[in-house]
Amino acid sequence: MAVNAYKIDHVAIAVNSIEETLPVYTGGIGLKFLHEEVVEDQMARLAFIEVGESLIELLEPTCPESPIRKFLDKKGPGIHHIAYAVPDVVEALASAKEAGYRLIDEVPRKGGHGKLIAFLHPKDTHGVLTEFCQRIPD
Amino acid sequence: MAVNAYKIDHVAIAVNSIEETLPVYTGGIGLKFLHEEVVEDQMARLAFIEVGESLIELLEPTCPESPIRKFLDKKGPGIHHIAYAVPDVVEALASAKEAGYRLIDEVPRKGGHGKLIAFLHPKDTHGVLTEFCQRIPD
Repeated sequence: MAVNAYKIDHVAIAVNSIEETLPVYTGGIGLKFLHEEVVEDQMARLAFIEVGESLIELLEPTCPESPIRKFLDKKGPGIHHIAYAVPDVVEALASAKEAGYRLIDEVPRKGGHGKLIAFLHPKDTHGVLTEFCQRIPD
Repeated sequence: MAVNAYKIDHVAIAVNSIEETLPVYTGGIGLKFLHEEVVEDQMARLAFIEVGESLIELLEPTCPESPIRKFLDKKGPGIHHIAYAVPDVVEALASAKEAGYRLIDEVPRKGGHGKLIAFLHPKDTHGVLTEFCQRIPD
């Protein structure tokens, strides 16, 4: 089994306000805003911005209990995680586990943008919260 | 004038040791190591890892005065900055400045992998250190 990550799917950035931060990406850096959605499971509003084959994903907490709120309170706004697109997230998790990496998600869950997602534990990836994700056809 | 960022050029990750961190990317995530070089200007050793059209760039300090050493001492290992490929870094800087973004580099400087690079100030990009970079043909 192998992970077979084939591109950066997205870089996720924790923000206090999508409304205030979006102009950095659409104006300052000149990227294209795609759409916005709320992912209840993550207690967050997500905004997707296109750049080449990847996305920038802005994460805004929707309630005080949101893990994004906790991240912002502790570290301030900034890069939250990096996600790699894989052809099969179940196989990627099994492969990473076999290689000795601890998993936050033993089974994939539903993320934004119609994807299956799962996280590796940042202690095993030298401080970088790392996600595998798999696009599910519409 | 416009920035015209067309892809994520690289995501840079500050590490204490490339040797210890590289297996996460080549083993755990299954990516391809390209090469390593020292960039004197940044007082850092850089390792480049390929993922789709982008790179993961591991940054290891080469001396106690390195800005990467200071980042590691303050925040621990983790994502350091995100870099967007632009066709013309001078034009991108002018455009960002015109849009009201403060620049760390008023003129581009030489980065790793034969690129011209320049940074925007993270205070204006909501905590995300942001680089523009332009590949210079060999």
